[in-house]
Amino acid sequence: MTMSHRMKLRSFESVLKNYKAVFLDSFGVIKNAHGIIPGVIDSVNTLKEMGKEVIVLTNDSSKSPALLAQNFRRLGMDMVNEENIISSGMMALAFLKNKIKKGTIVYVGTKQSSFYVEETGRNFISIRDFNLKDIKDVSALVFLDDEGYDWQMHLNKTINILRMKSIPVVVANTDNTYPVSSTEVNIATGAIARMIEKISKKKFIYFGKPDSQMFMFAYERIVNKKNLKRNEILMVGDTLRTDIMGGNKFGLGTALVLSGNTSENQMRTYIKSTGIIPNYICPSIAMDHY
Amino acid sequence: MTMSHRMKLRSFESVLKNYKAVFLDSFGVIKNAHGIIPGVIDSVNTLKEMGKEVIVLTNDSSKSPALLAQNFRRLGMDMVNEENIISSGMMALAFLKNKIKKGTIVYVGTKQSSFYVEETGRNFISIRDFNLKDIKDVSALVFLDDEGYDWQMHLNKTINILRMKSIPVVVANTDNTYPVSSTEVNIATGAIARMIEKISKKKFIYFGKPDSQMFMFAYERIVNKKNLKRNEILMVGDTLRTDIMGGNKFGLGTALVLSGNTSENQMRTYIKSTGIIPNYICPSIAMDHY
Amino acid sequence: MTMSHRMKLRSFESVLKNYKAVFLDSFGVIKNAHGIIPGVIDSVNTLKEMGKEVIVLTNDSSKSPALLAQNFRRLGMDMVNEENIISSGMMALAFLKNKIKKGTIVYVGTKQSSFYVEETGRNFISIRDFNLKDIKDVSALVFLDDEGYDWQMHLNKTINILRMKSIPVVVANTDNTYPVSSTEVNIATGAIARMIEKISKKKFIYFGKPDSQMFMFAYERIVNKKNLKRNEILMVGDTLRTDIMGGNKFGLGTALVLSGNTSENQMRTYIKSTGIIPNYICPSIAMDHY
Amino acid sequence: MTMSHRMKLRSFESVLKNYKAVFLDSFGVIKNAHGIIPGVIDSVNTLKEMGKEVIVLTNDSSKSPALLAQNFRRLGMDMVNEENIISSGMMALAFLKNKIKKGTIVYVGTKQSSFYVEETGRNFISIRDFNLKDIKDVSALVFLDDEGYDWQMHLNKTINILRMKSIPVVVANTDNTYPVSSTEVNIATGAIARMIEKISKKKFIYFGKPDSQMFMFAYERIVNKKNLKRNEILMVGDTLRTDIMGGNKFGLGTALVLSGNTSENQMRTYIKSTGIIPNYICPSIAMDHY
Repeated sequence: MTMSHRMKLRSFESVLKNYKAVFLDSFGVIKNAHGIIPGVIDSVNTLKEMGKEVIVLTNDSSKSPALLAQNFRRLGMDMVNEENIISSGMMALAFLKNKIKKGTIVYVGTKQSSFYVEETGRNFISIRDFNLKDIKDVSALVFLDDEGYDWQMHLNKTINILRMKSIPVVVANTDNTYPVSSTEVNIATGAIARMIEKISKKKFIYFGKPDSQMFMFAYERIVNKKNLKRNEILMVGDTLRTDIMGGNKFGLGTALVLSGNTSENQMRTYIKSTGIIPNYICPSIAMDHY
Repeated sequence: MTMSHRMKLRSFESVLKNYKAVFLDSFGVIKNAHGIIPGVIDSVNTLKEMGKEVIVLTNDSSKSPALLAQNFRRLGMDMVNEENIISSGMMALAFLKNKIKKGTIVYVGTKQSSFYVEETGRNFISIRDFNLKDIKDVSALVFLDDEGYDWQMHLNKTINILRMKSIPVVVANTDNTYPVSSTEVNIATGAIARMIEKISKKKFIYFGKPDSQMFMFAYERIVNKKNLKRNEILMVGDTLRTDIMGGNKFGLGTALVLSGNTSENQMRTYIKSTGIIPNYICPSIAMDHY
Repeated sequence: MTMSHRMKLRSFESVLKNYKAVFLDSFGVIKNAHGIIPGVIDSVNTLKEMGKEVIVLTNDSSKSPALLAQNFRRLGMDMVNEENIISSGMMALAFLKNKIKKGTIVYVGTKQSSFYVEETGRNFISIRDFNLKDIKDVSALVFLDDEGYDWQMHLNKTINILRMKSIPVVVANTDNTYPVSSTEVNIATGAIARMIEKISKKKFIYFGKPDSQMFMFAYERIVNKKNLKRNEILMVGDTLRTDIMGGNKFGLGTALVLSGNTSENQMRTYIKSTGIIPNYICPSIAMDHY
Repeated sequence: MTMSHRMKLRSFESVLKNYKAVFLDSFGVIKNAHGIIPGVIDSVNTLKEMGKEVIVLTNDSSKSPALLAQNFRRLGMDMVNEENIISSGMMALAFLKNKIKKGTIVYVGTKQSSFYVEETGRNFISIRDFNLKDIKDVSALVFLDDEGYDWQMHLNKTINILRMKSIPVVVANTDNTYPVSSTEVNIATGAIARMIEKISKKKFIYFGKPDSQMFMFAYERIVNKKNLKRNEILMVGDTLRTDIMGGNKFGLGTALVLSGNTSENQMRTYIKSTGIIPNYICPSIAMDHY
């Protein structure tokens, strides 16, 4: 796992032979702002034909797995269904369901993202609609999306909730930014939550790659079907800090693809400066790219 | 300067005798959300009668010193004029004037706060009005206020400016929050800027207490009139991390007042946990309070 | 899980009824600097008689589980054997075994701690004995203990290894300090590693509570014997940031005990300020304490 | 001050004409591990002949200015005397003298570095010799050097002092590392102090570039002789984060030299990634280098 021999690009096809299952990040690996990345549909079909399990692992808590799958289908990719998608929102949902037994959960995000609090069976309310006078009812707060509320008005409200009451705060997406075009990014939920955490001096509970919990969740799902060892699974992602760091730590094989967040130039500098070293580097998951 | 003997409250009057000048924080010392703090007008009048210089030192870059003075007058306090108010915005202005010789300065804040870029003589534009297509013209960016723009839309624009061009970024207010009522706070410019700094991985240039530059600026103003030593000046503030830390470091006497950010309970815990130790603790600057 | 009703102390006995297994932190729960904490031996015997599984979960990578068990026996506690002890060092060992296939692993720690690199089957060498001329052989570095080397000489050597070569760095103990008497602490491996990480600008891989991986490891061990749900397991610890945070996040019940790191006074302030909220607070695990 | 036109190297001679005084960093600008950097003696002589004031500004608190000057003389550079050397230790000394009126100051460093506490006129003692039983006498603690004590034994003692008593803690050198050969560095006082600060959760008081206080101290010294404006002074340094950041913020002209910490390759990446932009970049201060 030293770096020297890994800095050369390999075709995705050539790295597959040692693995019986593949975990794919979504944004930057399967799709980008323009739709499904060229060659990906054929590639996932081939993976299926080869008998390899395919699971999508995404730091996305803005939509339910069902809606994420529906989006894939609309873009022409119908072989990844709801059961094969694991979102960071699902970790937050599991935590909230298990640990919050009463009261109202305040969520910061869109109506669509509220899926992850609705499924807990608890009362829930958007930060937008919540009134500070009802502070006594609040039992938890969860960051789900960067959309669906007015940042100034409702982050100020969030800070005051946390000053008034000591409650568990869950962050369902650890990312700092997400791409919105080939040149521009938007600030993501993780960065917003870390600002609020720092101001409030609380300790928030973060879910999403590189945290082990998501990998474990995906691993358990696969182990129930096939009895695989961790090193028989390949994690494929476009981000060193989340996909590769998390995959390495969990004991999976890891492949960095250059079809998203990380360009070929940046890759060399960033691997060297951080010491986060993937097992392989591939241009994308398209089979015939090289 | 050990802590034990300092934890008891003293009247403001009793701590004045060793000092020939007084630096006053504004918010939490002179005024709060309800107006001028009771007893303060009499107290400042008495200071003047005693022949002590009074300078207001504020981490406020939302208004010009002239407007800040006008606000004081409107609240009935007419003995603090523009010349005796030093705002963190003035440090930012001095830096920009000195170091940015051409191009356009983008400011993040209200129309009123734009005073601090207008005075540089450079071109300037609000983040609200700026178009990313004009990125080649931008020579600096400055955070002035938490109002005057849409946080989501325009902080996303800010991030993309910093991704596209390497420019000096100035933060004219280092505070994390400011009080808006007796129980609620709002997120301040410092916290917003630190989020953007962390995401963009740049190094921003911060002005405002506890940084020495503001104390030096006030000190130079006073030294021109009277030849005072630093330990003949008393810094009075309601915040340990900015007013007291900065005053101590600069070599001034320091008095914490309990009329703002810091309550009597919090004070003991916070002094002990941080080791930021004021020379004196007073209920407020009202003369006859104790 | 809101705070109010949880701030009162409960006897350990009274909180057990909903749980079929108990995870115990070691230092501050089972033992302290003076030996086994009073009442603990009887308590663990009672747990066993009740048919509850007992697992020890410790952020200790200074000794093998066999040696940790031997230490317990020497102190008179013979019912916790090697198979029931899970140390953070075991996570590091699993990672290194899985991901480092060749080269030499440099370890920072004592001879005893080298168990966790020896078991990988790779070459290994102490930072003390390593010569920078052999940098080409190094494939990973692991922090195991704060003892066994000269901090100045060998941490300087560590920094230079990381400047010369980009390799995975593993931290097998995330703690900042550990108690050495009732009033004094020592700096622990986690704090040292974070200093080196910050200077070197790398991203280290941390194992140990509150990280989910250790909880998962313990959980898998228990699930193989009995088919338990997560909320049928109680994590008992003396530290909010590691034991309680990690247990809550993993979905376990959590009990803070006041027999170690956290005193009754500190507990109220710290729970309130951080928002890390245990399900229960008990004086210790002694059964008849209350 | 935008970046594009600044990325080309200029001769030091060519950038001098707009400046009446020059502030020089010591390590990496005047000297390195091998002695005085080639061409520097002639260059400083020329500066003097041109009538430009020369002041040395160094984050070095391991020796008194007198000893620093003596070292320069021993290396053949006799035109920089004690009066023209300003060390970060002098800021710490001024603070301690002004603010600590009684008790014992504990210093962390060598016997030579104790100059900066001895000059305060207070009692002082090395961390090496201090006994925790005398905690009641301690009134301040100051980090002066990374040498002169056993890191493990005496940093553990330092942590326990700070747990037992709330006192001001001063850090007289903010650097993370310093070069000891062309390929190796050592950990510096700043990094050690930040580790202790983080563990102890206190707020330490840091002196040294980029903090404005040192620039102000040097500026005041020069203003007393000649009435210079800030932008008539050029700060020359080999480190962007300290020399250039601090000089820019204080309003000086800034020149990065490539004779020390920063190589030509690193320079482009680091300026771009941080946004810390010098006015000029020169190979070194040797006059005829280009």
